[in-house]
Amino acid sequence: MQLPTLTPSSLLSAVEISATAAFALSGLLAAARKKLDAVGVCVVAGLAAFGGGTLRDVLLDRRPFFWVEHPNWLWALLALCAMAMLLLRRRHLALTERAIQWPDALGLGLFTALGTQLALDQGLSGIVAVLMGMITAVFGGVLRDIVCNEIPSAFHDHRPYAVCSFLGGGVMVLAHGLDWSEGSALLAAAGTATGLRLLALWQDWRLPAWRVHR
Amino acid sequence: MQLPTLTPSSLLSAVEISATAAFALSGLLAAARKKLDAVGVCVVAGLAAFGGGTLRDVLLDRRPFFWVEHPNWLWALLALCAMAMLLLRRRHLALTERAIQWPDALGLGLFTALGTQLALDQGLSGIVAVLMGMITAVFGGVLRDIVCNEIPSAFHDHRPYAVCSFLGGGVMVLAHGLDWSEGSALLAAAGTATGLRLLALWQDWRLPAWRVHR
Amino acid sequence: MQLPTLTPSSLLSAVEISATAAFALSGLLAAARKKLDAVGVCVVAGLAAFGGGTLRDVLLDRRPFFWVEHPNWLWALLALCAMAMLLLRRRHLALTERAIQWPDALGLGLFTALGTQLALDQGLSGIVAVLMGMITAVFGGVLRDIVCNEIPSAFHDHRPYAVCSFLGGGVMVLAHGLDWSEGSALLAAAGTATGLRLLALWQDWRLPAWRVHR
Repeated sequence: MQLPTLTPSSLLSAVEISATAAFALSGLLAAARKKLDAVGVCVVAGLAAFGGGTLRDVLLDRRPFFWVEHPNWLWALLALCAMAMLLLRRRHLALTERAIQWPDALGLGLFTALGTQLALDQGLSGIVAVLMGMITAVFGGVLRDIVCNEIPSAFHDHRPYAVCSFLGGGVMVLAHGLDWSEGSALLAAAGTATGLRLLALWQDWRLPAWRVHR
Repeated sequence: MQLPTLTPSSLLSAVEISATAAFALSGLLAAARKKLDAVGVCVVAGLAAFGGGTLRDVLLDRRPFFWVEHPNWLWALLALCAMAMLLLRRRHLALTERAIQWPDALGLGLFTALGTQLALDQGLSGIVAVLMGMITAVFGGVLRDIVCNEIPSAFHDHRPYAVCSFLGGGVMVLAHGLDWSEGSALLAAAGTATGLRLLALWQDWRLPAWRVHR
Repeated sequence: MQLPTLTPSSLLSAVEISATAAFALSGLLAAARKKLDAVGVCVVAGLAAFGGGTLRDVLLDRRPFFWVEHPNWLWALLALCAMAMLLLRRRHLALTERAIQWPDALGLGLFTALGTQLALDQGLSGIVAVLMGMITAVFGGVLRDIVCNEIPSAFHDHRPYAVCSFLGGGVMVLAHGLDWSEGSALLAAAGTATGLRLLALWQDWRLPAWRVHR
């Protein structure tokens, strides 16, 4: 029997799976807070996990969507929701919220880098590509919050989140301009966004609030 | 003079018209509850009636939309809204809410079946097709509730609604796999969703609530 | 050195720029009221400015979007948001709200006319074209309000806004049917919508409220 070896591509898959699960769990927690029923839990988890990439693909007119091409992810999402509804206890909630911060930050980096890359491959200009990367990484959470009838936390909680994505996307555009290899560009962009996000969490950075002064 | 004979196709049209009117009326009632103005009433009624199919078509990249190809439905919607605003009295509201439960359940079945069928015709996998059927039948109401600044009742009221659509879509996928004729498949799928919905209303079934236990 | 002469096309550009800025500022004010952070301010301003045209283009399956083709507008938007966050004082808020009513009304007319024109050029029927014009002019504000977790003011404040757009679009369809030149049609349609809106503001017109009577 052969053990799986740690190749870059298997590492990428592991990051992608854990990040998508983290996004879905953020939806589960939001749904639990709002006391949604089982259907609402699954829909909000699905929006949080796949909503950003789907919105980007609608804007870029790309088909098929990721989850249409790989429907197994939908089954995995349903299984995750069922397991969470059976097993999650009240004392797990805060724990889960903390536990997903790491894979969530990895997802912020990875999906930013992939989304920006996709837009650059279509020949779009830098600022538009950065925006598409941000939509990929951040708008799943925005749709989650809109359906839960909340102001999106990404626009409201004064923590650097979309800003990390913005800067990571900027690194991707730069690397693209410098003709870096795809792997290095991906690593640099995702590393920037993820690193900044973790630093922001660790140092408890806040965005400058816009207080309208007298 | 010839009386119209009851053919399957004229029956289908009758179901479609009454179901769309029921969806529009659900939007009218939601708009009345929120005291929207005349513009809001028309927009919310239109979203409730046509929003689900339009969202499905955007996701499947199908054009033209139903209401673009058949603009008479838009005129009919405006007429319905005008009539409702002129004639509806407070004592009619609860009555209307009860009266639309039947055609609404018919619409749940019909639009689920048609949406799932469309996705299967595009060669999409079963779970994706079921999801598209559900979006067709349920997301008009979701958009209605989002615009009215409410958590969508389909995710919140613990009544089986989207679940009936899900199971009806499952029957459609099964019938497709067994090579049933289009008519039988439509009848079985729509009948399942509508029947389950009516049974759920009659028996006052509730979805298992997700209470996060200690 | 040559001074710029006032051509119809430079006038059109001036109207377009001031109207887009007015739409963006309406987003800024909404974000300030809800105490969004810097990211939220930029996103809501962007939605208010470009959301309506983008939604219309998604529905009509047109690409590239305006802001993809002209990414300088995104830079201008970021600059506007940065300036507003630095310079805007509390006593400016009410002033800004009043000051943007004029360019906002110009934008209502211009974007209605352009959106209706686009749809007619695709051969869509009159009522659908009018609807597309209305979406172009009004739905940026609708998306702004949804993200800010408010019922869209266009559906709720009983002031004629979407109705002016509807009538302006109707004039465009009429002018198209009468084979008017593009310039005259644009002027008549935009003039109708803008004129009615200014008249409504001046005379403090209200939409007939839908009070559900006993």
